[in-house]
Amino acid sequence: MNPLTKQVPNVPKNAVKYLNNHQSEAVDRLQQFLTIQSVSTDPAFSQEVRRGAKWVARELNKIGMEVTVYDTAGHPVVLAKTPNQLLAPGAAEAPHVLFYGHYDVQPPDPIDLWTTPPFLPEVRDGAIYARGASDDKGQVCCFLEALRAWTQNNGKLPVPVTVLIEGEEECGSVNLQPFIKKHKENLAADIVVISDTSMWDDQTVTITYGLRGLLYFDVQLHGPSRDLHSGVYGGVLANPATMITRIIGKLFDSENRITIPGFYDDVATLSDQEAAQWEALDFDEHKDCLGPIGVDTPFGEEGYSTLQRRWARPSCDINGIYGGYMGEGAKTVIPSFAGAKVSFRLALNQNANKIAKAFEGWLHLHDTGGCEWKITNHGAADPVGVSSDSPFVAAAQRAIKQSSGKAAVLAKEGATIPVVADFKNVLGLDSLLIGFGLNSDCIHSPDEHFALDRFNLGCRTHALLLSELAKGG
Amino acid sequence: MNPLTKQVPNVPKNAVKYLNNHQSEAVDRLQQFLTIQSVSTDPAFSQEVRRGAKWVARELNKIGMEVTVYDTAGHPVVLAKTPNQLLAPGAAEAPHVLFYGHYDVQPPDPIDLWTTPPFLPEVRDGAIYARGASDDKGQVCCFLEALRAWTQNNGKLPVPVTVLIEGEEECGSVNLQPFIKKHKENLAADIVVISDTSMWDDQTVTITYGLRGLLYFDVQLHGPSRDLHSGVYGGVLANPATMITRIIGKLFDSENRITIPGFYDDVATLSDQEAAQWEALDFDEHKDCLGPIGVDTPFGEEGYSTLQRRWARPSCDINGIYGGYMGEGAKTVIPSFAGAKVSFRLALNQNANKIAKAFEGWLHLHDTGGCEWKITNHGAADPVGVSSDSPFVAAAQRAIKQSSGKAAVLAKEGATIPVVADFKNVLGLDSLLIGFGLNSDCIHSPDEHFALDRFNLGCRTHALLLSELAKGG
Repeated sequence: MNPLTKQVPNVPKNAVKYLNNHQSEAVDRLQQFLTIQSVSTDPAFSQEVRRGAKWVARELNKIGMEVTVYDTAGHPVVLAKTPNQLLAPGAAEAPHVLFYGHYDVQPPDPIDLWTTPPFLPEVRDGAIYARGASDDKGQVCCFLEALRAWTQNNGKLPVPVTVLIEGEEECGSVNLQPFIKKHKENLAADIVVISDTSMWDDQTVTITYGLRGLLYFDVQLHGPSRDLHSGVYGGVLANPATMITRIIGKLFDSENRITIPGFYDDVATLSDQEAAQWEALDFDEHKDCLGPIGVDTPFGEEGYSTLQRRWARPSCDINGIYGGYMGEGAKTVIPSFAGAKVSFRLALNQNANKIAKAFEGWLHLHDTGGCEWKITNHGAADPVGVSSDSPFVAAAQRAIKQSSGKAAVLAKEGATIPVVADFKNVLGLDSLLIGFGLNSDCIHSPDEHFALDRFNLGCRTHALLLSELAKGG
Repeated sequence: MNPLTKQVPNVPKNAVKYLNNHQSEAVDRLQQFLTIQSVSTDPAFSQEVRRGAKWVARELNKIGMEVTVYDTAGHPVVLAKTPNQLLAPGAAEAPHVLFYGHYDVQPPDPIDLWTTPPFLPEVRDGAIYARGASDDKGQVCCFLEALRAWTQNNGKLPVPVTVLIEGEEECGSVNLQPFIKKHKENLAADIVVISDTSMWDDQTVTITYGLRGLLYFDVQLHGPSRDLHSGVYGGVLANPATMITRIIGKLFDSENRITIPGFYDDVATLSDQEAAQWEALDFDEHKDCLGPIGVDTPFGEEGYSTLQRRWARPSCDINGIYGGYMGEGAKTVIPSFAGAKVSFRLALNQNANKIAKAFEGWLHLHDTGGCEWKITNHGAADPVGVSSDSPFVAAAQRAIKQSSGKAAVLAKEGATIPVVADFKNVLGLDSLLIGFGLNSDCIHSPDEHFALDRFNLGCRTHALLLSELAKGG
């Protein structure tokens, strides 16, 4: 047991009380953060992304952390360390927490589908609406507010904390891996804590013990040197828009399996035991997954349930497709090029670089009619599984029980946090993935939002997690 | 022989002289016409389309024609008739010419690829650059200037003329067929004259005796009620962007034949005689077709030459494809819908409505994974063949020989002028298709242009055609 909590047992309670009493100030700070248009994937927003980094650095400074903003080949990384004077007696010996989050956000398009502008946050019906409200600015603020509550309350933290907030999560964290390698010693810790995932339902917190990997490509097929009249040229040459559908359309077979040779070779087989655990979870695919998004029909790889498809199986999606005339009405053009955003979610044991090579090879297997590929790899992240049975998970379970009044659910997630694999591979660290989002938060969609009671729950959970980790992490 | 040309043999010569002497004024008028943004397919431009109609009406008025601008369910139709006082002695008994053209233009996108703005016409290197310069405003002006030359020169016309200029050619001439049916008697004539096609090369005028038909669809596949995160939902439901490529990608078989059942049933077989005539034409597929547009590889239905594919065989093109994230970089979204512009060029004897039904039926043959089609038919035009052996063609051959100094080439064209089938079916009229464009004019593309010497050639040819038709049409 940590000497701090032995000596001052009411400190965590006071931190929680502080959070409850100062919630409106926390919401104000989050609203300020959400006005920053830190869209990392679009170069037009690069100054706003930098403003995002500066905002985080300033808040960490206010809390008393020692902050450095590092430039990278892409967007800045904010790194903050606990100075000795911020550590409670005995805290230096407690497990060192590395908190990771991201201050960048997805593009707000399609903007006209937002009820209120994506970067003018508005609180309505008990939730804050803005791009990044849930993913991940709101969740980053949960941790920042927990740190603030401890330091405001006691002037000290119960564990050493390093905070790493990056600006490229939404574009593949391309420059973070080299950063982690370079700053390996500076990032030494015992456990990573991340809040960028979802709750099981609005009352039940999930500890996520597995994430899929991600591979994202922009593939363009280039043909004639200019757009052409489809009457004059229709039928005499390869139309890039036609050819890309003919080729990309072959990515799946009739059982909805991905046709790239070797694609499934390394996928980890789901054990009967784990399958049974998932089967026992309170999950109805219609009520809890498809119904709320207006879908009647589950659809995917044959032979698997919806949860298995999401957590244990890889997937491939066309995230965007473009070329030729995309406006109202008709234009009889043969476009000089067409493109598609093609991404893969990778299941446990798949290797992102290996699949990337296989996909590029597969593209070149097909007759393009003389058109040429222009292939851009927008980032690769390996899938990751973390231990679901460790003292850190036990500490998290205790904190969650106290903050929410309910036991946590242990589950996997279909999404990707690219850096989790790097923490494992480079730093040798497991990650505690404790998120406060919901699938209905519309992350990556118009009207993204984050309920204020979940924001407060996140703040309280992190405040309690710090003391639970201090106790027995 | 027409009494006019008997009495005043130098009138046509004087008209040609007038055209040569007043070319810069003609170019000024064309430039003015080209500043009007008469993009018919996009509702945002509807006021500009109306301005286009008014401009044409005003010019016809100045020439002395009796002009009416008719509203339709879509864009206005301009109809002008020759008043008796504008007819030379004996002209009332000469063949009545119905001139057809269109004042609407294709959308200017992609705008950033234009050297100068599409609606700020500029003359450089002997050509006028603007959207519509060649298709079809420049060619309409050829005829208007010919009429002007006759009336300025002599005060009279050698044949009765009706001028029909519509504003929906680039969006399928949907409202023109009903207009022609309604105004059948008002449109009575002996021959239609149209300038909306290409020359064989920059010295040789083509008389076009066949056009392909056109069918144009926007097909959208709608799935989830909102855009989704591809990590959370990837692999568990049908992604509309993925499904549309899987389905549209099946439009062709491995021999590049269209897979819609019955699609080729009615296609007219090319006779050995016609095939031999085409073979004898001075046409090199690389030099005259593919090379100038940066394409090395002919590609299309197996078993046919490039000219046969263009003139005698149907084709299918994806003219546009859209959905999901189409910007720079990466966005991991499953879009709620995706769409494609799919068009068909129809070969002789195919029926546009029959093929439209077959295509819609084919779309519904495929598993959409629960997504739903939203299908919009943007217009259907039957293919057409016209006689290549008539007194009107003979008159055109004489006029072209005089204006260009070279014999005309008789050829077909792969493109479509929807109204030509209506003139045949409703009015019982053949069309003389004599155009002054070139495939290198970049019609439907950025930097559309029309060489001034071809503009002048067009004016002179029409001036001479009027007297040749008067002689012996």
